[in-house]
Amino acid sequence: MSDSIPIDSVGLVEPQLHHFDEPLTLRSGKVLAEFDLMVETYGELNAERSNAVLICHALSGDHHAAGYHSVDDAKPGWWDACIGPGKAIDTNLFFVVCLNNLGGCAGSTGPTSINPDSNKYYGPDFPVVTVRDWVRSQAMLMDRLDIEKWAAVIGGSLGGMQVLRWAISYPERLRHAICIAAAPKLSAQNIAFNEVARHSITSDPFFHAGRYLEHGTYPKQGLMLARMVGHITYLSDGAMRSKFGKTVTDFELEGANFGRDLRTGTLSFGFNVDFQVESYLHYQGERFSENFDANTYLLMTKALDYFDPSVDFDGDLSRAFMNGDCKFMLMSFSTDWRFPPERSRELVNDLLKADREVTYLEIDADQGHDAFLLAIPRYVNAFSAYLKRAHRELMSNDPDREPTQKRYPVTENNNAP
Amino acid sequence: MSDSIPIDSVGLVEPQLHHFDEPLTLRSGKVLAEFDLMVETYGELNAERSNAVLICHALSGDHHAAGYHSVDDAKPGWWDACIGPGKAIDTNLFFVVCLNNLGGCAGSTGPTSINPDSNKYYGPDFPVVTVRDWVRSQAMLMDRLDIEKWAAVIGGSLGGMQVLRWAISYPERLRHAICIAAAPKLSAQNIAFNEVARHSITSDPFFHAGRYLEHGTYPKQGLMLARMVGHITYLSDGAMRSKFGKTVTDFELEGANFGRDLRTGTLSFGFNVDFQVESYLHYQGERFSENFDANTYLLMTKALDYFDPSVDFDGDLSRAFMNGDCKFMLMSFSTDWRFPPERSRELVNDLLKADREVTYLEIDADQGHDAFLLAIPRYVNAFSAYLKRAHRELMSNDPDREPTQKRYPVTENNNAP
Repeated sequence: MSDSIPIDSVGLVEPQLHHFDEPLTLRSGKVLAEFDLMVETYGELNAERSNAVLICHALSGDHHAAGYHSVDDAKPGWWDACIGPGKAIDTNLFFVVCLNNLGGCAGSTGPTSINPDSNKYYGPDFPVVTVRDWVRSQAMLMDRLDIEKWAAVIGGSLGGMQVLRWAISYPERLRHAICIAAAPKLSAQNIAFNEVARHSITSDPFFHAGRYLEHGTYPKQGLMLARMVGHITYLSDGAMRSKFGKTVTDFELEGANFGRDLRTGTLSFGFNVDFQVESYLHYQGERFSENFDANTYLLMTKALDYFDPSVDFDGDLSRAFMNGDCKFMLMSFSTDWRFPPERSRELVNDLLKADREVTYLEIDADQGHDAFLLAIPRYVNAFSAYLKRAHRELMSNDPDREPTQKRYPVTENNNAP
Repeated sequence: MSDSIPIDSVGLVEPQLHHFDEPLTLRSGKVLAEFDLMVETYGELNAERSNAVLICHALSGDHHAAGYHSVDDAKPGWWDACIGPGKAIDTNLFFVVCLNNLGGCAGSTGPTSINPDSNKYYGPDFPVVTVRDWVRSQAMLMDRLDIEKWAAVIGGSLGGMQVLRWAISYPERLRHAICIAAAPKLSAQNIAFNEVARHSITSDPFFHAGRYLEHGTYPKQGLMLARMVGHITYLSDGAMRSKFGKTVTDFELEGANFGRDLRTGTLSFGFNVDFQVESYLHYQGERFSENFDANTYLLMTKALDYFDPSVDFDGDLSRAFMNGDCKFMLMSFSTDWRFPPERSRELVNDLLKADREVTYLEIDADQGHDAFLLAIPRYVNAFSAYLKRAHRELMSNDPDREPTQKRYPVTENNNAP
């Protein structure tokens, strides 16, 4: 392994493609007759097959959560700050599984895959997938890996929603549900931002009703705009201010130079970029639009919008958590205005109402929603301590916890996406 | 006057076009050899010519602040909630002047005007105008109207920035500066949202580098998107929630029906509109894009971004307010996340540091930034009481206040936009 790979990294990793022939009936009623899931794993599964944790990715994530695909990679996987030997999700203790969700664009079956019915790209014909569908496909992968019960299911943002769905749909198949910077459903404002993102993609003339690959084109501007809007909502006002608000020195990121804050320098008096934050947003939008599929972006935002497990329980979310005995760990970040702490507290209240064991931590952090991706000391320390305790509990095989029993009859009517 | 016009309205009003032959040198160095300003006035100028107040409009406003152009108008002017007989800005007491700013698209010279040099539309050749430029042109209008001193200069949002500029550039020409829901400069997040709006316009293929009128086209989608993003930032999360978050009944606005909140109904499992908030945003964007010029939108957002009077005073805004003796009234709204109360408090501190008289009110209101346009009781009552007092003071001609003296030498270096 190269010297350039940090010692606390999982190192070089290789994704594995799992093909599923069993049909999957989606929440929409449509059926995927067969599908692929692209998967990465880190660490070792123990003999009891009890130390596996599932990582669920957010809107723009994929299976590549940690480590490097090549020594030449500029960056490691998206959650490398939290996954690795000695890190919060300690690969010395756990066997970590992460997959690209259905509808994604990083190897799992999605809009850029070939539709076996037509031998063309799925494109816009790829069915709308929901959080529930993802969790079902993750359970199929779980069976394939011969894992009976996850030591933990872990995710932030849209990933946190999958964690909640696991605890509701498969209450007997996880010991810990770790849900970070998430919410039990989107606010109208969240949906509004998603709709702006979708509208910017679908109104791009190169979108061609989603069949851009067949046309050999790409709605680059639309996707770029969508990401720019998204990116603003991931950062706190304070984080932007400290990054761009006051400095008059050059600002660099990943080798790109964003120039000076021209507010204190020469103004262009035109519509060129005058402020660092503008060039930074362009850079983020541009980079993203070169690496992500527009139809996947549409699908992911729709899965976010649709998520609301309470609809199966007459709007009373607490009833969704009446079954199972997994323990919950929730974390939120003070400046996250996409899914603010208030939303996590709502969830805590519903979990307590359902008589569930909950650990909740609000972390003071300036970085907004993106904080969950970063190695913020109080966050990773709490995260790490919780999972270490979970691992000890697992090893001691606490008899109080076995066997898992349904404590209430299932009353879910299975309509929620 | 028609029965359909409310009794507390200024009634039917007619705009007047003022032509200026004197050249105006803009902050950018460019010169407008001549220009028009479209103006409306309400109420009567008194014999002393002392009761005139200037209303400065925000991003999408114009000269039509109150009353109706025709009995058939569906809606009155944009600030009719606050301007009229007996209203906060009482036309029984004051002579109210409002103009469409330079660069606008409602009659004053702007991108949709004919450039006398080329006999074509100005389009993108219309120079970038700044808040300082607007205030200069407003002072020219003031001279034309033979008004020596405004009883008050009043504005919200970008209009509030013009109020601040008046107090700095013409400290001896106003008695009261009423600055509502504004900030002394934009945050990086504000600029980021503006840049997204601009990018959505300029990347629209029908934008044609700003020469869409010559091409007989229009960047409708780009402007629509820009407005959708803007609109989200004008409303609070709470306002959106109470408007769209819970209701399952049809939601109507201005005769348009936005359907049910389909979260509790049937989901489309496609990319059609599923939630009220989506159709509401489409409606707002669509309506706006049919009535506003895209180049003007670019100019207005750039004027916002550039505003920062502190740059002439080494970043110390308090020094900008060392001259003059106008009194300040500032108001902000609790859920305004575009220009939150915190930004007004910053300004209050700088004004106090400059030894100025300041009245400041934070109003609890659920409506976000848009609250300043609405007849919220505590807001309009305080606004009204302040202006009534100002009027009494004017009538008593308080000798303490005359003559206006510069209390400090002007140290401004005139670089700020």
